[in-house]
Amino acid sequence: MRLSRRRLLGGGAAAGITAGVTAGLAGGYLAGAVHGPRVSQDLSQSYAFRGTHQAGIVTPVQDRLHFAAFDVSTHSREELIGLLRLWTDAAELMTQGREVGTGGAVAGAGNLPPDDTGEALGLPPSGLTITFGFGPSLFRDAQGRDRFGLAGSQPRALRELPHFPGDDLEPAASNGDLCIQACAHDPQVAVHAIRNLARIGFGTVALRWSQLGFGRTSTTSVSQDTPRNLFGFKDGTANVVAEQPDDLAQHVWVGADDDAAAIWLAGGSYLVARRFKMAIEVWDRQTLDDQEGFIGRSKATGAPLSGGDEFTEPDFDLPGSNGEPTIAADAHVRVVHPDANHGARMLRRGYNFVDGTDALGSLNAGLFFLAFVRNPDTHFIPIQTRMARHDSLMEYLKVTGSALFAVPPGIAAGEYVGQGLFE
Amino acid sequence: MRLSRRRLLGGGAAAGITAGVTAGLAGGYLAGAVHGPRVSQDLSQSYAFRGTHQAGIVTPVQDRLHFAAFDVSTHSREELIGLLRLWTDAAELMTQGREVGTGGAVAGAGNLPPDDTGEALGLPPSGLTITFGFGPSLFRDAQGRDRFGLAGSQPRALRELPHFPGDDLEPAASNGDLCIQACAHDPQVAVHAIRNLARIGFGTVALRWSQLGFGRTSTTSVSQDTPRNLFGFKDGTANVVAEQPDDLAQHVWVGADDDAAAIWLAGGSYLVARRFKMAIEVWDRQTLDDQEGFIGRSKATGAPLSGGDEFTEPDFDLPGSNGEPTIAADAHVRVVHPDANHGARMLRRGYNFVDGTDALGSLNAGLFFLAFVRNPDTHFIPIQTRMARHDSLMEYLKVTGSALFAVPPGIAAGEYVGQGLFE
Repeated sequence: MRLSRRRLLGGGAAAGITAGVTAGLAGGYLAGAVHGPRVSQDLSQSYAFRGTHQAGIVTPVQDRLHFAAFDVSTHSREELIGLLRLWTDAAELMTQGREVGTGGAVAGAGNLPPDDTGEALGLPPSGLTITFGFGPSLFRDAQGRDRFGLAGSQPRALRELPHFPGDDLEPAASNGDLCIQACAHDPQVAVHAIRNLARIGFGTVALRWSQLGFGRTSTTSVSQDTPRNLFGFKDGTANVVAEQPDDLAQHVWVGADDDAAAIWLAGGSYLVARRFKMAIEVWDRQTLDDQEGFIGRSKATGAPLSGGDEFTEPDFDLPGSNGEPTIAADAHVRVVHPDANHGARMLRRGYNFVDGTDALGSLNAGLFFLAFVRNPDTHFIPIQTRMARHDSLMEYLKVTGSALFAVPPGIAAGEYVGQGLFE
Repeated sequence: MRLSRRRLLGGGAAAGITAGVTAGLAGGYLAGAVHGPRVSQDLSQSYAFRGTHQAGIVTPVQDRLHFAAFDVSTHSREELIGLLRLWTDAAELMTQGREVGTGGAVAGAGNLPPDDTGEALGLPPSGLTITFGFGPSLFRDAQGRDRFGLAGSQPRALRELPHFPGDDLEPAASNGDLCIQACAHDPQVAVHAIRNLARIGFGTVALRWSQLGFGRTSTTSVSQDTPRNLFGFKDGTANVVAEQPDDLAQHVWVGADDDAAAIWLAGGSYLVARRFKMAIEVWDRQTLDDQEGFIGRSKATGAPLSGGDEFTEPDFDLPGSNGEPTIAADAHVRVVHPDANHGARMLRRGYNFVDGTDALGSLNAGLFFLAFVRNPDTHFIPIQTRMARHDSLMEYLKVTGSALFAVPPGIAAGEYVGQGLFE
């Protein structure tokens, strides 16, 4: 079957229209055109920075990402707290589409540099969310020493991730004391956020690594369509979404009784970041049947190979014509399925990336995997281990960066990010 | 003066609304909100691939870029022509929002890989343009030997760019036999285009380098607002735009009598690509006055320091309070102004980039400068030389990549890109 992009769209799929406010346009101003999505995002959208949970977790996934990890260069707990206060103020302003600082970008502060770098002047909030996390090395240094009097509050599960088969990590692009995830509909807005926070932190923290992502590969709301990763497949079909509060409580938010040493983390989460470099050129030489066999889903529709549509549960017992299961033992969808992992699920917020060309002349491209989980010991490490050992997809994947962070809960008016950890 | 992003928008600037079709929304469906731009781009937009000129030059600048340079690995002229035929067919399909090849992404071709890699399935054309160019090394190799029988048709001005002060080039990220510029409103669509063209070329060409750009820094139509570069300033205010056909003929399109050896290039242009890495962190520590002095324009409005609004011509003679000109002798706007360069102008289509973090922990960020000119010997090299020697901005810039390509004219039905060069 010849399935063109036009025909896919003509089939009534709600692809691409992610902001509710724009959905109404399809039948109105632009009626009569062939294509589905008319406009991309509602750039005037803004999300509150304060709340029960940090924004940027269950928030409908924005199209663009700038993620940064920092190392703390000061030895002073007070300086660190001071920075978190400044970051809180700046993040709140930027998420509301405002400039950083009291002077902003063009106040003409005379002998001082402007408070804001200015490249987002004139741009609306663009759905910006800014989400902060704390790495294990913030609590104890490589020698196990307490750096800021926080060691007693280190969450049990907040340890450097183990080495998995297939890991080929660049140490300089892994781990970090602090992380900031900036997501927005406009990359200039996400980049502006990270840049200004890095600037505010100058002298207190140093940028360790950062990653841009240009196409989300997940959805955290039933109103979002499922996008495609660079293997060409829909990704994130079975994600935990905002509309399932029971699932969020079970799989995403740290519970009040989860960890007596880290009560401050209740209502927060753990953020796993993994940079999966794809062997794009090798993948592209595999047949469609093989590609679908590796994934266990149809490339066209996202339906499991056992039948149905994208949202049909896979039938892992259904035999194929050769007597083997239709969905192979080493198919990705089977290996990572909750049924094979004690029911554990993650909230994923991954992004595609292309970072130019590698030394071999291949696209340096893949999936920057981000997942929020209640406990990495139950919700990520066992699944990643299974995947690294048994998933046929791993032949086309190499993990070049890896990090784990504890993401504190949201804050009320007057508080700063992570205040519960320090006070 | 405290000038918030909201206030800037409330001031009536037409910032951000770039696609004409969406401009009507501001007063209608979404009336009452505070912010200016409501939606970004009309993703259903498509541009014809064939025409008098290649698309992607005077086309209103799309928001996202994937640029790639290739080296030809075959010695066969016929294979090279064969590739250009295949590229032409594929590019035309993709710009119309269709899959590559006869089978597309999900045709189930049995023992063959799919014709299309699939990550753009379900995405509309998104304003995609694909523009091809030929580098000097396609005509003659490093030893001056004629590679494909084209040496006699090499344009006089198509030579490797000279070394400029401030150049710190990575050879692997400079030059190339062929280039492809893919611009679209959606980065996934631009990346899909480059990836599939690279895939089609496998065995005939090898990817040499590629660059993603996420925020345009230019405008080629009076209906587009002027965006900001990562220095935080409006960039491209005085660009050559599509609505000025006399300027295009004078400054952008190669004339029929320009070069007797290269009549095939008439109606085409030269494409200069320069990767300017910005010393972001150093720049951010300069005062607003100094930043504005380096550029010669207001950061808030883009108006020249001599007064007026963004589109007022600079008055280079206007004295300031200290008796010196208001716009300094080494201000960027003065150094590159046509008045200082025998009237020469360029059509710029630059993009911001952030490629993660460099070895020193700074953002690896800047401006990927793209300019189309009628003749680099008159319209680029002298200006870049002046800029490299006299522009105070150069203290904050380092050029890490550089290339020059001849961009053939557009093609009619049945022709392939560059046909005039080969036949």
